[in-house]
Amino acid sequence: MNRSLLRSVARSAQAGLPIASRRYASSSVTFNWEDPLAATELFTEEELAVQDTARQYCQKRLMPRILEAYRNEDYDRRILEEMGELGLLGASIQGYGCAGVSTVASGLITKEVERVDSGYRSGMSVQSSLAMTGIHEFGSEEQKERFLPGLAQGKVAGCFGLTEPNHGSDPGSMETIAREHPTQKGVFLLTGSKTWITNSPIADLALVWAKLESTGKIRGFLVERSKCPPGTFETPVIKNKSALRASITGMIQMDDCPVAVENMFPDVEGLTGPFTCLNSARLGIAFGSMGALEDCISRAREYSLERKQFKGNPLAKYQLIQKKLADAVTDAAYGTLAAVQVARLKDAGKATPEMISMIKRQNCDRALQNSRILQEIFGGNAASDEYHIGRHVANLFVVQTYEGQSDIHALILGRAITGKQAFV
Amino acid sequence: MNRSLLRSVARSAQAGLPIASRRYASSSVTFNWEDPLAATELFTEEELAVQDTARQYCQKRLMPRILEAYRNEDYDRRILEEMGELGLLGASIQGYGCAGVSTVASGLITKEVERVDSGYRSGMSVQSSLAMTGIHEFGSEEQKERFLPGLAQGKVAGCFGLTEPNHGSDPGSMETIAREHPTQKGVFLLTGSKTWITNSPIADLALVWAKLESTGKIRGFLVERSKCPPGTFETPVIKNKSALRASITGMIQMDDCPVAVENMFPDVEGLTGPFTCLNSARLGIAFGSMGALEDCISRAREYSLERKQFKGNPLAKYQLIQKKLADAVTDAAYGTLAAVQVARLKDAGKATPEMISMIKRQNCDRALQNSRILQEIFGGNAASDEYHIGRHVANLFVVQTYEGQSDIHALILGRAITGKQAFV
Amino acid sequence: MNRSLLRSVARSAQAGLPIASRRYASSSVTFNWEDPLAATELFTEEELAVQDTARQYCQKRLMPRILEAYRNEDYDRRILEEMGELGLLGASIQGYGCAGVSTVASGLITKEVERVDSGYRSGMSVQSSLAMTGIHEFGSEEQKERFLPGLAQGKVAGCFGLTEPNHGSDPGSMETIAREHPTQKGVFLLTGSKTWITNSPIADLALVWAKLESTGKIRGFLVERSKCPPGTFETPVIKNKSALRASITGMIQMDDCPVAVENMFPDVEGLTGPFTCLNSARLGIAFGSMGALEDCISRAREYSLERKQFKGNPLAKYQLIQKKLADAVTDAAYGTLAAVQVARLKDAGKATPEMISMIKRQNCDRALQNSRILQEIFGGNAASDEYHIGRHVANLFVVQTYEGQSDIHALILGRAITGKQAFV
Amino acid sequence: MNRSLLRSVARSAQAGLPIASRRYASSSVTFNWEDPLAATELFTEEELAVQDTARQYCQKRLMPRILEAYRNEDYDRRILEEMGELGLLGASIQGYGCAGVSTVASGLITKEVERVDSGYRSGMSVQSSLAMTGIHEFGSEEQKERFLPGLAQGKVAGCFGLTEPNHGSDPGSMETIAREHPTQKGVFLLTGSKTWITNSPIADLALVWAKLESTGKIRGFLVERSKCPPGTFETPVIKNKSALRASITGMIQMDDCPVAVENMFPDVEGLTGPFTCLNSARLGIAFGSMGALEDCISRAREYSLERKQFKGNPLAKYQLIQKKLADAVTDAAYGTLAAVQVARLKDAGKATPEMISMIKRQNCDRALQNSRILQEIFGGNAASDEYHIGRHVANLFVVQTYEGQSDIHALILGRAITGKQAFV
Repeated sequence: MNRSLLRSVARSAQAGLPIASRRYASSSVTFNWEDPLAATELFTEEELAVQDTARQYCQKRLMPRILEAYRNEDYDRRILEEMGELGLLGASIQGYGCAGVSTVASGLITKEVERVDSGYRSGMSVQSSLAMTGIHEFGSEEQKERFLPGLAQGKVAGCFGLTEPNHGSDPGSMETIAREHPTQKGVFLLTGSKTWITNSPIADLALVWAKLESTGKIRGFLVERSKCPPGTFETPVIKNKSALRASITGMIQMDDCPVAVENMFPDVEGLTGPFTCLNSARLGIAFGSMGALEDCISRAREYSLERKQFKGNPLAKYQLIQKKLADAVTDAAYGTLAAVQVARLKDAGKATPEMISMIKRQNCDRALQNSRILQEIFGGNAASDEYHIGRHVANLFVVQTYEGQSDIHALILGRAITGKQAFV
Repeated sequence: MNRSLLRSVARSAQAGLPIASRRYASSSVTFNWEDPLAATELFTEEELAVQDTARQYCQKRLMPRILEAYRNEDYDRRILEEMGELGLLGASIQGYGCAGVSTVASGLITKEVERVDSGYRSGMSVQSSLAMTGIHEFGSEEQKERFLPGLAQGKVAGCFGLTEPNHGSDPGSMETIAREHPTQKGVFLLTGSKTWITNSPIADLALVWAKLESTGKIRGFLVERSKCPPGTFETPVIKNKSALRASITGMIQMDDCPVAVENMFPDVEGLTGPFTCLNSARLGIAFGSMGALEDCISRAREYSLERKQFKGNPLAKYQLIQKKLADAVTDAAYGTLAAVQVARLKDAGKATPEMISMIKRQNCDRALQNSRILQEIFGGNAASDEYHIGRHVANLFVVQTYEGQSDIHALILGRAITGKQAFV
Repeated sequence: MNRSLLRSVARSAQAGLPIASRRYASSSVTFNWEDPLAATELFTEEELAVQDTARQYCQKRLMPRILEAYRNEDYDRRILEEMGELGLLGASIQGYGCAGVSTVASGLITKEVERVDSGYRSGMSVQSSLAMTGIHEFGSEEQKERFLPGLAQGKVAGCFGLTEPNHGSDPGSMETIAREHPTQKGVFLLTGSKTWITNSPIADLALVWAKLESTGKIRGFLVERSKCPPGTFETPVIKNKSALRASITGMIQMDDCPVAVENMFPDVEGLTGPFTCLNSARLGIAFGSMGALEDCISRAREYSLERKQFKGNPLAKYQLIQKKLADAVTDAAYGTLAAVQVARLKDAGKATPEMISMIKRQNCDRALQNSRILQEIFGGNAASDEYHIGRHVANLFVVQTYEGQSDIHALILGRAITGKQAFV
Repeated sequence: MNRSLLRSVARSAQAGLPIASRRYASSSVTFNWEDPLAATELFTEEELAVQDTARQYCQKRLMPRILEAYRNEDYDRRILEEMGELGLLGASIQGYGCAGVSTVASGLITKEVERVDSGYRSGMSVQSSLAMTGIHEFGSEEQKERFLPGLAQGKVAGCFGLTEPNHGSDPGSMETIAREHPTQKGVFLLTGSKTWITNSPIADLALVWAKLESTGKIRGFLVERSKCPPGTFETPVIKNKSALRASITGMIQMDDCPVAVENMFPDVEGLTGPFTCLNSARLGIAFGSMGALEDCISRAREYSLERKQFKGNPLAKYQLIQKKLADAVTDAAYGTLAAVQVARLKDAGKATPEMISMIKRQNCDRALQNSRILQEIFGGNAASDEYHIGRHVANLFVVQTYEGQSDIHALILGRAITGKQAFV
């Protein structure tokens, strides 16, 4: 530990800076409130191109539909096909008709969709992160080839059946059972209920998790609606939701629904399967929630510049308004950097579930909190759905809640930090 | 905007991922509560070596001194020389006897020092970021050669005189005046008071900002104590501070203090000079505050594992405790990533003052808030200085406040976001 | 200042305790989470009877209607008549067919109505606090006799036109003008737009504030819809609200709408008139918001006891859940005490507008904040409107915002505390 | 439920308003930021006189001593005698030389002392609420007569030994043992350690709680220092506290310390004894913490009016400053009303421990939170102890923590609300 050591260290440090750092050096930067900590500098040209493609689609094709869709709880099934056409579904999967982009690129797609609406993003996440990731990670080669291309094109709609009416944060206690058919060999009969299942009413294919009666262990089943006899597989829609009204949500009710053994994931047992899918979705949510927050910021900023009160000053001129904007912009910038970091780590095989818990929790919490505070800027006008902010606020509450409520992730982190579990 | 576009984009994306991403790929990672989002993956080997050198010094040499130093408001002048010996002072400056490491490496040094105490970090920041950066950025070549080597070795102690008793957040209104000597050509006479000046009582060299009487513009002067006639340059110490007691703080009182024109910065006028120095210091604080927070986390975690209440359970087992730890760990991880990003941008010439305002503000706010919440884990024992957490809490309040109070930075950001200023 | 002084003081203190204190002494109290600081002890028997009457009506008649009303934005006009039948409208007014109860009793009515829904309370507040209070405070004797009985019975529906599309927090800048009819003496022609006017589409009588062209001063006009020629007084409904969907809201568009001078308030000029009405409504909101919060608490508590997760434990058993409940119960208790205090002061002629700003702001802020946190307890189920909590959360945002957004009241208080205004 | 019912109810309501309400009616009130919700209206003349006496003493005699006392951790033993002289000690006790004032009056005394410093209030609380209340509630008549008059005069200094080094929030697990003397009948030998005991180093009389070896039940012992053989009763002082430095704190180390059976409380067993004393102290803290907060408000307000930044505007003119003041003033007003309510209920025998948990927790939490936010107004000057705010902030952290940390009281409330305990 002496001076010359540090000096020599320093000299080689200059030589050895990673390329990424050099990349920063290309041209000058001015402060951009839409990307305040220059996260863009971390993206490849290709990732930027993917983001641009996604943004154009979302703003041109999704944005004009959202107001009526949300008012009427009306999800347009064609959206999946449009997304499939562009390669946005299962985009980080290699092969099987998928785009095979980086996890960062995939996250940027998610962010652009949620910039329009969390419900649209939910519909995409279920297809991509839950159904397709599940099949890609745990399906047999035959299952992958049979199901992934149709899902990637959006011609087959998928859903993911894990949560049950009495088991939200605690899926390990699920009651859905798969028992062997008493007479038909190679067939399982699934019985049980799943609820709050995005896309279930329109799904052609449901990835359903059930306990195998013989072992008591959770297994994954690919239930094809077209092959289910009447009355064995019902997916009633849940209406009158207070949020995510632009996505379609329902139950899955199975009563001795027959599923061939060829449609069961071959190896994965227990919670590993569903949790892997959830982790993929959660990483997407960490990106997506930042998109919703950025839209709130943009709208609140614009409103504050246009709305005049007290001697003709725009709201933007008041300290209390500026503080709200500064807080939100900061949290959006920080959250994006953290999501990018974990996405890079994931592509390198270095992301852990706790990291994903951390960014899912933090980004959702901050998106929700800031969107609520930005909503105050609109005063009474926030009650009009044409300002969009109320929709984001309502959505983000659910986004914070699903796929692991904030407190549950806090306890996952707490366990990782202390080595003690505090769930019970 | 069609499928094949995205496909081809994706294919080249795989080929073109920046080296930095590949770097993540080397080996497996498990969740590490001390580096939860694997910021370490972003550092060069050399930066890691610098961090290690700094940590060893801080834990072995500074940590054992801090309790008594803080109790007695007793700053050990030799610390500057020790730091100089290791090359920790002005470490990111190239040449003039400085180490010339990256801004990230410099930030990691700062973080290690503040892990021990914000006061020790303040003492170093004043020397490195304020005095040395000022000279390096704005001094003439002759000034650099004359002053930087001694400062880098810690043999010369520097300080930075900007804040005045009546002008804290608003330095542009400063009252200190530099007028031309009525008879001696090439000499200015400085008159005025500066306050809350770290290291002023021990400083050999003071970088003092004053308004040139003839122009009304702020200029920088390098005041050498040894050349000041008695009574013209006094630096009374400020005692009984409620925080940062391990640093030494004082005033600078100048009464027709003569300074040669050779000691005035040749070109820089107005607030550009002091703000450049402050930005350098603020970037360091964004790193440093995370060091203090990490020390709070580490101590709170350890206490929660050792302290048993109610049927022999360690505190760490309780939900309310785990949530506090999870929140703090998250904010420390996010804050570090943001600071690293801005440091990389700075080395690339792409960091803006607003970015630095953002990370100085957010990291200080979060460090303060979390340290206070972690302090609750210690219950009544927090009142004992031997648990150290109370010291960090007291320090971090001042760290949040100085070099731009949180609200001031919010208004700087608000102005950048909205284009409207709300200071008055 | 000596011992015997305090002793003698103490002795007489025992003798002179106010009756109210003695009233506490009747019987023993156990902790009641629905009235944790025993606010009930502050009420007269009669006030308790009024509360009981209101609660029975609200729970038996309003509660069964709310779900469909909110879903369909469908306000049942008969509610006003039912309320009128029971004497709930303008209840604190003496004479003119009104009940003449204390302000506390009136507040308790408000609280019971908002326990069901803030929209129902809004409908009542507009009738009672805005229209009827305005007439009672500022109307001529003839106006009072002509209008108050019908309003009290709910046969005449009233509304209150102050807010304009471009002037929310700043009504003094209103643009609505009343000019003298060019030919008909004793007639004013009103022109302008009001927005976010509860009950305007169903109102028979609108209390409209407009600037008298001749003086530039704001005056109050009682506009009878039945007397307005076609096209001079339109009240289009505002649909697709994101909250308060069980109340009906609209605009008032006036185009040379003729109003007789007999329908103008005789004396009051400027903002005194509308602000007096608003203060009356705000005091009601301070009570009402506590009713909504108490309903959230009750529902969250019940859900937490019924919902089991992790080894069959009810959510109520978890620390993180208990903290949410404890915080909410505390704020409900504090807010009720504060509202009762100001209501008593009002009946004694001692309440100031700043006091009302304080309790309107604080109670709304806390109701909103706690309702959001309680909502987390419901997890994903909060998205179902059958749990009611989402409705309260959405409503309370608007309640916090209207009749003085939280920040505006903060600046009113800030001005009162410091003597400096910071609106512009 | 019909109209005439409510009408008749209303009419009698007017007649039957409690005297307290009438009392409000005497004269007009303007908004007073020092008593924003006119809590003063709830006090008897006598209570106001007690408050005035206490305030004069505190401001004239305590305030001038606090700066040096806090700096040097130097508690002036004469303060107890001065307080005794004025009748401030054990003031709500009837007889035995005590003043016998109402609980509200006693709370107002507490508030005035803590307006100066929480440490001074701690010293008084230990004497009054812990030692004297314990003896008054549980002592034999002989014990009361023997000990209370000296304690009331402040000639005897008392302390209260409950907390042990390993048992803070969980006193039921205490390890201190009282065993019968092997040879001397009627004598117990106490062995064990107590820590964080205010006043222990100067105490003449220690109320010590210990488990009786023969029964395992907790009993209370009045240990007279003068009767303890050397080495059996030691009270080493704890120095270098980070807060409450104006009170003296120590341990109690007992090694076969002999106590006569006449000095054991005759009947009370288990935690009833200590918890009754703690409840009395906690009620005082609910008042006292509001005194400290009010002092912070007053100082921050004054500073904000005097300190000019940016074009000569006082800080008080800025929105972000006004919001801080408005929040703090509101919480101070609400907290005082709640404390008064529980004090009145206590005198009527209607206060429950959960009520006291609620107000102790909430008032401490809010006092701490607001004092920290107000501290920001002082900027860097907050670090100077001459502004006093830093001292309050440091003190209030400990006040929030001791006698039941905030989370512990949350769980007490949670248990009362849900019927489920969540401590383990």
